Amino acid sequence: MYQFSEHSQEFQARLQTFMDEHIFPNEDQYAQHLHHTDNRWAPIPLMDELKTKAREAGLWNLFVPPGLAQFADHDGMSNLDYAPLAEMMGRVLWSPEVFNCNAPDTGNMEVLMKYGTEAQQEQWLTPLLAGELRSSYAMTEPQVASSDATNVELRIERDGDEWVLNGRKWFITNAMYERTKIFIVMGKSDPENENRHKQQSQVLVPKSTPGLELIRPLTTLGYDDAPLGHAELLFTDVRVPLENILLGEGRGFEIAQGRLGPGRIHHCMRLIGIAQRSLELACVRAEARTTFGRALSQHQSVREEISRCFSEIEMARLLVLKTCARMDELGAKGAMDLIAASKTSVPIMMQQVIDRCMQIHGAGGLTEDYCMAEGFNYARWCRQADGPDQVHQMALGKMIIKRYSNG
Amino acid sequence: MYQFSEHSQEFQARLQTFMDEHIFPNEDQYAQHLHHTDNRWAPIPLMDELKTKAREAGLWNLFVPPGLAQFADHDGMSNLDYAPLAEMMGRVLWSPEVFNCNAPDTGNMEVLMKYGTEAQQEQWLTPLLAGELRSSYAMTEPQVASSDATNVELRIERDGDEWVLNGRKWFITNAMYERTKIFIVMGKSDPENENRHKQQSQVLVPKSTPGLELIRPLTTLGYDDAPLGHAELLFTDVRVPLENILLGEGRGFEIAQGRLGPGRIHHCMRLIGIAQRSLELACVRAEARTTFGRALSQHQSVREEISRCFSEIEMARLLVLKTCARMDELGAKGAMDLIAASKTSVPIMMQQVIDRCMQIHGAGGLTEDYCMAEGFNYARWCRQADGPDQVHQMALGKMIIKRYSNG
Amino acid sequence: MYQFSEHSQEFQARLQTFMDEHIFPNEDQYAQHLHHTDNRWAPIPLMDELKTKAREAGLWNLFVPPGLAQFADHDGMSNLDYAPLAEMMGRVLWSPEVFNCNAPDTGNMEVLMKYGTEAQQEQWLTPLLAGELRSSYAMTEPQVASSDATNVELRIERDGDEWVLNGRKWFITNAMYERTKIFIVMGKSDPENENRHKQQSQVLVPKSTPGLELIRPLTTLGYDDAPLGHAELLFTDVRVPLENILLGEGRGFEIAQGRLGPGRIHHCMRLIGIAQRSLELACVRAEARTTFGRALSQHQSVREEISRCFSEIEMARLLVLKTCARMDELGAKGAMDLIAASKTSVPIMMQQVIDRCMQIHGAGGLTEDYCMAEGFNYARWCRQADGPDQVHQMALGKMIIKRYSNG
Amino acid sequence: MYQFSEHSQEFQARLQTFMDEHIFPNEDQYAQHLHHTDNRWAPIPLMDELKTKAREAGLWNLFVPPGLAQFADHDGMSNLDYAPLAEMMGRVLWSPEVFNCNAPDTGNMEVLMKYGTEAQQEQWLTPLLAGELRSSYAMTEPQVASSDATNVELRIERDGDEWVLNGRKWFITNAMYERTKIFIVMGKSDPENENRHKQQSQVLVPKSTPGLELIRPLTTLGYDDAPLGHAELLFTDVRVPLENILLGEGRGFEIAQGRLGPGRIHHCMRLIGIAQRSLELACVRAEARTTFGRALSQHQSVREEISRCFSEIEMARLLVLKTCARMDELGAKGAMDLIAASKTSVPIMMQQVIDRCMQIHGAGGLTEDYCMAEGFNYARWCRQADGPDQVHQMALGKMIIKRYSNG
Repeated sequence: MYQFSEHSQEFQARLQTFMDEHIFPNEDQYAQHLHHTDNRWAPIPLMDELKTKAREAGLWNLFVPPGLAQFADHDGMSNLDYAPLAEMMGRVLWSPEVFNCNAPDTGNMEVLMKYGTEAQQEQWLTPLLAGELRSSYAMTEPQVASSDATNVELRIERDGDEWVLNGRKWFITNAMYERTKIFIVMGKSDPENENRHKQQSQVLVPKSTPGLELIRPLTTLGYDDAPLGHAELLFTDVRVPLENILLGEGRGFEIAQGRLGPGRIHHCMRLIGIAQRSLELACVRAEARTTFGRALSQHQSVREEISRCFSEIEMARLLVLKTCARMDELGAKGAMDLIAASKTSVPIMMQQVIDRCMQIHGAGGLTEDYCMAEGFNYARWCRQADGPDQVHQMALGKMIIKRYSNG
Repeated sequence: MYQFSEHSQEFQARLQTFMDEHIFPNEDQYAQHLHHTDNRWAPIPLMDELKTKAREAGLWNLFVPPGLAQFADHDGMSNLDYAPLAEMMGRVLWSPEVFNCNAPDTGNMEVLMKYGTEAQQEQWLTPLLAGELRSSYAMTEPQVASSDATNVELRIERDGDEWVLNGRKWFITNAMYERTKIFIVMGKSDPENENRHKQQSQVLVPKSTPGLELIRPLTTLGYDDAPLGHAELLFTDVRVPLENILLGEGRGFEIAQGRLGPGRIHHCMRLIGIAQRSLELACVRAEARTTFGRALSQHQSVREEISRCFSEIEMARLLVLKTCARMDELGAKGAMDLIAASKTSVPIMMQQVIDRCMQIHGAGGLTEDYCMAEGFNYARWCRQADGPDQVHQMALGKMIIKRYSNG
Repeated sequence: MYQFSEHSQEFQARLQTFMDEHIFPNEDQYAQHLHHTDNRWAPIPLMDELKTKAREAGLWNLFVPPGLAQFADHDGMSNLDYAPLAEMMGRVLWSPEVFNCNAPDTGNMEVLMKYGTEAQQEQWLTPLLAGELRSSYAMTEPQVASSDATNVELRIERDGDEWVLNGRKWFITNAMYERTKIFIVMGKSDPENENRHKQQSQVLVPKSTPGLELIRPLTTLGYDDAPLGHAELLFTDVRVPLENILLGEGRGFEIAQGRLGPGRIHHCMRLIGIAQRSLELACVRAEARTTFGRALSQHQSVREEISRCFSEIEMARLLVLKTCARMDELGAKGAMDLIAASKTSVPIMMQQVIDRCMQIHGAGGLTEDYCMAEGFNYARWCRQADGPDQVHQMALGKMIIKRYSNG
Repeated sequence: MYQFSEHSQEFQARLQTFMDEHIFPNEDQYAQHLHHTDNRWAPIPLMDELKTKAREAGLWNLFVPPGLAQFADHDGMSNLDYAPLAEMMGRVLWSPEVFNCNAPDTGNMEVLMKYGTEAQQEQWLTPLLAGELRSSYAMTEPQVASSDATNVELRIERDGDEWVLNGRKWFITNAMYERTKIFIVMGKSDPENENRHKQQSQVLVPKSTPGLELIRPLTTLGYDDAPLGHAELLFTDVRVPLENILLGEGRGFEIAQGRLGPGRIHHCMRLIGIAQRSLELACVRAEARTTFGRALSQHQSVREEISRCFSEIEMARLLVLKTCARMDELGAKGAMDLIAASKTSVPIMMQQVIDRCMQIHGAGGLTEDYCMAEGFNYARWCRQADGPDQVHQMALGKMIIKRYSNG
């Protein structure tokens, strides 16, 4: 119990070595590139070098689950096996791309593996799995509470042998990235259908399709998350062939449902990674820094804060691991309660952990000299990503009340 | 993973049945007895009936670990096996005594099993294991921060073939209880010893020994925890024979160290039980109660609160279970960090969970009509029991800083 | 600005002297009386002695506002003048009765001053103002969310020249007190009235009226608040003459509205008093207690906690004072937002302040040796008294949203 | 009571008009300029236009207190008069500069008014008061806990008729700004002086002095606060004439002490302004946005959050106003406790208020489309500015413990 499988442990060791050799030593170079580049959305050469190395090291597409192992170079990774790997990658926010494990590409690839036609897979999945191009998932809309997927308003209308898309999306991660070539777009193809869950469809839209405009990059707490970016998009009579639909007309909601469980949990694991790293940095700082004649580590309040961070990270980690085990056993649907509990508890808890660690660092803790400020932004952002926490708490609360108020 | 052993599951099922048949249906009677009795410290007849039934049901001395199984009717229960049982008992605060599993008797019995002479075991352990009498552990003192055991001031002096005790203790649980007959008393037998951990001894003091006075029962937030009670005690020239010493002169600190790990974890498990029950009650209430034209369960803020309770209980439970697994594997010493994390996180978290559930119940939630107010008091009290949280956070913080700053 | 009137300052000085000479020195005696009495609901002789002295000292009925000064021996006290006096009384929870300033009598007296007939005033108000008897206000009901006054279900039916009352009430403060002789009872006299605010009436019911049963005293977190108590009451065909109605049939809601503003604010002021006293005790303790080789006051975390307590008490106090100033200027209705803000912010904040101060005291902080545990209970209870905080937050939130979202 | 002076009210009205006419309508243009500029540190033409208008409107140098009114076009503004003006300016983070009221220039001008020689005033104060140039205050250092001013390490050595400066500073606000021409630099001129408060001096260093390097701009949570910026500076044999010293050798600590009180309070007032604006935006959003079939404003949890924001803003505001009143009466020294209470309570409270308002806005709340994200960063940053909160809590806690533990 509370022991990872040998399979996972082996990958953990391999990944740890890779992080130590190739990721941590390159953090500064990566940051400097972005500081000095004229084009924050262009691919970063260092990333390509590291991807080659990661693939050679057998650390590629680790997110692929056992049921889809035919798409990977490994036997497939259960959620529980993958969780500690995602936590390790989370220590450096840009590192998941090195292993072709970054959101939203992982979710998009999973959609294509599960629902793509052979032609769709050949055209888009293969290069995605090879890390040659990147993808976006266009669901969130500015005008509506799109955390409820039935609210999306982008119109997908059939016109002859084409789908015509009109509407607006925002917070479309990866969309600014020049390497991104393909968007999975959620919209309403049958808004009058009585079954609210049959109104939606998802279609593949190449980024270069006429009528698709990148309005602007969005920031969160001042971060643009370059080179991936979060974009606002405008679709004006965007036309794609009928065969670009995924799974079939009216099945967009179904795809959306299947897609989101693991994604939320991966966010949580990465956040735990960055929070754990923040804690470790705070420990180093507490030992190294002297104020009022004693090391910070001698101050009782610092020790109390450190102890809180340790306990909260451990609790968050255990909740996520149990969620993974449940997902592995019963699928995302059977783990809905724990997924919602993780989604609504872990980011806010890790935000507080990181906040304390920043504070221990003094003013410097807020700068780019450490990983904390960006990690803080990531945690804060996750309280909105995939829907605001409140929406998930509402669903979870309803479920729990039902469970205990009668059966 | 995250699956209890068959051994534990079997006992869980048996205990659940017993709780349903014998404990929950008797809660009201137990409360009424205490309300109307003239003597709150006398044994309660109902308790004796239930103890007999529990013993017959094979639910007796479940706290005994595998290494001491010769003292039990069962094969011994690892911490991980026992944890869910303690949680179940925790749902009714007085129920652990039914199963001879209540604090501080469990810890005292463990001390006698491990360190008692044959004569001591015959005289005191045998009737304790049979539930015929109860015991106290007298360590905390009013004048000093006795969470640091080296601070105790009660004097234990040798005079001929007797130990003579002088000093004051308080918060001595069980001491008011008429069934309690024996105290394990911690004091200083060699206060000048250079080794601060060799200054203490522990001796067995029958409650009836002349010079031992019960000054008064203490309350916490208005609760006297009858019939067990928390007492203030005065020792004035209390004399016991030399052979009443435990383990040997100067070994009191050693005994204290060994004693406390599991106790703290049992408190945590029981608190999780009462918090879980509070959550379930809140769900029932939310469904049953209507305000402003809608069931409470329809209000978003109620759902959010319920979801928070669910998540926090789950995280607390997982932390405690991991702590148990670690203790089973490495002993209390090897699990020091997790024990401290549990001790300082679980009570305060469960206090908040219960507080929310009380609030959902309206004014009635604060009364004795529900288990919540008393559970709240238990949680609040646990933030002081076995030392204030701050002391443990200090130790844990220090340990974590050392771990990560290397040094 | 931020200066009390000379009028108030003069009374503050006088009250301070009285507290120092007569209240603090008698705290132990008062507590001991309750510990050893056979009848916790009987008047306490000490109280009568102190009341005589307070009256002689010109510290009597200080709650009476300027507009009703004809009922007092002084010129009337504005809310702002009275606030610091209520804070001072709050330091000893039982002391307001000494000055004839305790809830719910103050509110009841105000109702009688404003709405009572001459006969009602002669029979009940005169002895209440003289402190010869006490009163209850019976509004809350166990089955309904009576924080919404339109929900009350107790029936008040006219039968000839009598009102007949049937129903159940609970949390009726003072009702257990033997000195309490008169209840103001809120019920529905016209449940079918289309105007939901005209369905209620309030009638005067002597405690001795046949059919009125004291079912039981209620506790909150283990406290029975003797000798006043909070009772559950059953009304079975309770008959009172028609002239016992207050203000007139169908005007019960109107009375309730007018009654509650100052009451909530008095609770807040008293809570600030007990929190302030807790802070002062914690400072003394921090200086006096040594752990791990240094005074508690030397530990940074203790200083941080003390500083938080200071800041939060100050903020709470300022909010209440501004609320008082607004009430003095515009009446309770014009200060609705600030009253709700105080009601929902001060008790929970003071609960946390007291909680920290208890923790600094170690286990002893939870006992009756200090004022904190009982003060904690008072703060917790105030989050439910006069309706759960959530109800007031809902109203306040609605008001604020309206204010800023358009006008 | 709780009424602003007529003097203040008159300026409030005038400022409100100006904000409505000239500031709010230009927010977008200001943001767009920064987005598209090649040089984020260059003066923004719009700013110069607005400054001219503000001066014409008699809204210039409003921060100047009565005692220094000879330097202003008005009679001087007490802290209490100025507070609501600062709050109004706080609603748009860049607006204080429009009124020549932005940090750290206000503090620097005050230093020059109080301690500058006539020559220093002519050269630097006159153009600063005219808004023709800007200034920095160089105190914080990366290697030491410079919240304790006695820790600064930058060396100021006398060499003939020059001071020679060597050392490193960071978080020097305004330093990146091209309009900034003069730095007040704190350093040690006599590190061996037995009196630790006589070791420091402050000297005027023109930005263009050889040896003074701008190493880099620093960010906090991703914000660079352009065009002002926070810079890291390196001083290598920087030489200035002897007459550039302020007040005299060894008097640097004295200047630092006098400078900081009002500055902290101005930060607090501005934060309250941005929090108040966030609340108002959240109200508008709550009314406008529909989720799950009802306006957000109908959801109980939204109302509760709004009510919390209202209450906390009000409490923070009152604390700051009382602090101002006390400073006006007794000076910064006599208001030390309240200044520390404000400094350590208001930013963290406003951070939480803004966090809730962001959350109500969904993902968009984190973007630059609203003032909240930048306001959040400002609040977070203020928990470090002028020293981490913990340092001030330590001092405040110590003061309060002393006050109540004996006297």
